[in-house]
Amino acid sequence: MSEGYVLKGNLLYSTSPEQMVSVPNGFLVCQEGKVAGAFPALPECYKNLPLVDYGDRLIIPGLVDLHLHAPQYAFRGIGMDMELLDWLETHVFPEEAKYKDLEYARKAYSIFASDLAASATTRACIFATIHRPATLLLMELLEETRGVKALVGKVNMDRNSPAFLCEESAQRSLEETALWIEQGRGRFQHVGMVLTPRFTPSCTAPLMKGLGRLQKETGLPVQSHLSENLSEIEWVRELCPGASSYGETYYQAGLLGGEGCPTIMAHCVHSSEQEMALLKKQGVYLALCAQSNTNLRSGIAPVRAYMEQGMNLGLGTDVAGGSSLSIFHAMVDAMQSSNLRWRLVDDSWKPLTVKEAFYLGTKGGGSFFGKVGSFEGGYAFDAVVLDDTGLPHPQPLTPEERLERMLYLSDDRQIYAKYLEGYQVFQKGNRTDALPQQN
Amino acid sequence: MSEGYVLKGNLLYSTSPEQMVSVPNGFLVCQEGKVAGAFPALPECYKNLPLVDYGDRLIIPGLVDLHLHAPQYAFRGIGMDMELLDWLETHVFPEEAKYKDLEYARKAYSIFASDLAASATTRACIFATIHRPATLLLMELLEETRGVKALVGKVNMDRNSPAFLCEESAQRSLEETALWIEQGRGRFQHVGMVLTPRFTPSCTAPLMKGLGRLQKETGLPVQSHLSENLSEIEWVRELCPGASSYGETYYQAGLLGGEGCPTIMAHCVHSSEQEMALLKKQGVYLALCAQSNTNLRSGIAPVRAYMEQGMNLGLGTDVAGGSSLSIFHAMVDAMQSSNLRWRLVDDSWKPLTVKEAFYLGTKGGGSFFGKVGSFEGGYAFDAVVLDDTGLPHPQPLTPEERLERMLYLSDDRQIYAKYLEGYQVFQKGNRTDALPQQN
Repeated sequence: MSEGYVLKGNLLYSTSPEQMVSVPNGFLVCQEGKVAGAFPALPECYKNLPLVDYGDRLIIPGLVDLHLHAPQYAFRGIGMDMELLDWLETHVFPEEAKYKDLEYARKAYSIFASDLAASATTRACIFATIHRPATLLLMELLEETRGVKALVGKVNMDRNSPAFLCEESAQRSLEETALWIEQGRGRFQHVGMVLTPRFTPSCTAPLMKGLGRLQKETGLPVQSHLSENLSEIEWVRELCPGASSYGETYYQAGLLGGEGCPTIMAHCVHSSEQEMALLKKQGVYLALCAQSNTNLRSGIAPVRAYMEQGMNLGLGTDVAGGSSLSIFHAMVDAMQSSNLRWRLVDDSWKPLTVKEAFYLGTKGGGSFFGKVGSFEGGYAFDAVVLDDTGLPHPQPLTPEERLERMLYLSDDRQIYAKYLEGYQVFQKGNRTDALPQQN
Repeated sequence: MSEGYVLKGNLLYSTSPEQMVSVPNGFLVCQEGKVAGAFPALPECYKNLPLVDYGDRLIIPGLVDLHLHAPQYAFRGIGMDMELLDWLETHVFPEEAKYKDLEYARKAYSIFASDLAASATTRACIFATIHRPATLLLMELLEETRGVKALVGKVNMDRNSPAFLCEESAQRSLEETALWIEQGRGRFQHVGMVLTPRFTPSCTAPLMKGLGRLQKETGLPVQSHLSENLSEIEWVRELCPGASSYGETYYQAGLLGGEGCPTIMAHCVHSSEQEMALLKKQGVYLALCAQSNTNLRSGIAPVRAYMEQGMNLGLGTDVAGGSSLSIFHAMVDAMQSSNLRWRLVDDSWKPLTVKEAFYLGTKGGGSFFGKVGSFEGGYAFDAVVLDDTGLPHPQPLTPEERLERMLYLSDDRQIYAKYLEGYQVFQKGNRTDALPQQN
């Protein structure tokens, strides 16, 4: 590993929302877990490195999922016929309550971790439940299964939640969170922690403030939900009359970005101009979850407007508001939603292109983790090898066209191999490619 | 076969848009290619029939695809970043022109026919191209591959089309169509013919009128496109100033339903009230293609309004405006689009439910073929056996929930066996179940 190695294949990666680089039959050089470069011809200085030839397959940066709920994976694709708040009461809360039982949690999270490992995702920000032991178990399973580098959050909820899924007080919630951090921090190589107030309606002001203090003490990142649904926003307005926007309820607690507080807010479908300005000022990452926003009848986020304002943007599957773990599908969902927004709401904002959607699902969201999501020099060596031979076509296709097809047509069968920070973490059929494997 | 047989499994089928019948561990009796009944306990009179026990698997009516383009399957999932008319010029017409070459057509249509056979679809209405020999080849391949009962149309185009994909005159187009009918009619057991003017912009009035005469002579059904895209509608208005609606351009030629002229019109996203009234009066079937209407930025059809008016409705994948052959996915697309229409356009029309979407993709569209798409007595014995063991879940699920998941999560791996008019036409891994096989 110290000397590095080379992967050969059709390389494709974004450098900006508008620009996708294609290097047919190119050479991707890994050194010390980072990309040394993507070359059309292998430079002399790398010619002694071991090389894995992936032939005509595509090689792309690992995909980045900025928002999903591990405990909801169990019921993905069921009960998608209501709006957010009813859906939470009817489907989400009863299911999440089951994770008090570690046996159940092991069964459910094992399925989730294994499917996530077999996907094209290499980085993920994940909600667990309020349960400390089950959340630690999820982290263990993700570490064992490998395949992704994840941030996992024990959820905080101390109000407006059913008794079976409500922490008894702000203080107890904070104590459990502190204990969770003590028990989990630094324990895993691939799994980190993220503070996770569920959303303002289920967190009292003392809990939010306490989490803000914890954030300052620990420097942990933050994830939550923001301005997803109109009824939710109205509810927050009633609950927090002192805040000028939903976003400000997090801001007041020190949980909305800014120096030393990397933050992801999921959705932002209905953010006001004032809220958008605050999010921008604080450098908050928006996790765009188009499929969920469609399934739960929330609406369509103004992604083009966010892009033009230079917001930090990435994609989320929002399982189980979204039914699929695939960020490829999330790219399509983002494009499709932008099409309908253009047609039905405001034709001054152009629909997203394939290049833009691919950027959002790789380098866009990846930048939350630093230099992640591209094959430019110095980026983390997170790579996915795609085999599309199972989807035959009668005509020749360019690598770009083959990648575009993957967005629409791929499932786990096309995920051939996966590399995370230079280590091969997944190989279809458990073949090994005689490359450095992680201990 | 004459005595019939029994399938055992979890039966699920629609009787109306609102009602889905579930018969857990039920018995589905086939006699003479028709459903004799779906029973919770096997009636005495059927106890001597051979029985195939599908265990805990789901058994549903075969799905019905009222609109798709076989030659476009090759480029599904590519070039979905423009509106209809540009997309036709850029992607569709150049690809369809290739089907003049029978070698290319064989390569492409073989992939299509094989994938369609492995899907949950048992009935399909298919556009080919203007090329008679390639259209006959497609029919042969569908017949050989089995797995669906299809109507296939040689497309008519004699104006506003690029020279490489335009028939030289109305007369030549009609002659070729007549010859195609002569060569193909009655030749296949599972593949029938359907008259297929592409759409008004690409058919002169003499061609339309000639096809109307041919329809009367032959009694063949008709399929075409209607009111999909705003620019298209405007163009038709310019081309046909004597017609009070786009729909009337077909009506004037005798190609829009009515006694003896079963007709499918795809899309109807932007039909006026007048056009809707005409479609209803003529008993025209609307093929709803939500994914295509999203990909090509056409808009969202007012499906709820159509349902409340008692229109004849079914679903179409519209490959390659839609990227997937799956009518399960088309059900989800229809629900998702109706969610966004409710949120963004008109909240007086409620979103579609799972039951309604399932109905549209089975009995709704199936009724175009007669008693097709349900397990009520007397219906054609078109059945699909689904195996969802590859999608594990930690909690118990009802058969209804498992079916709902199939809409969102299934791909060809869940299609375990397929029956068409009482014959088993597909079995995963080519196992046989010692049931009547077709010669």
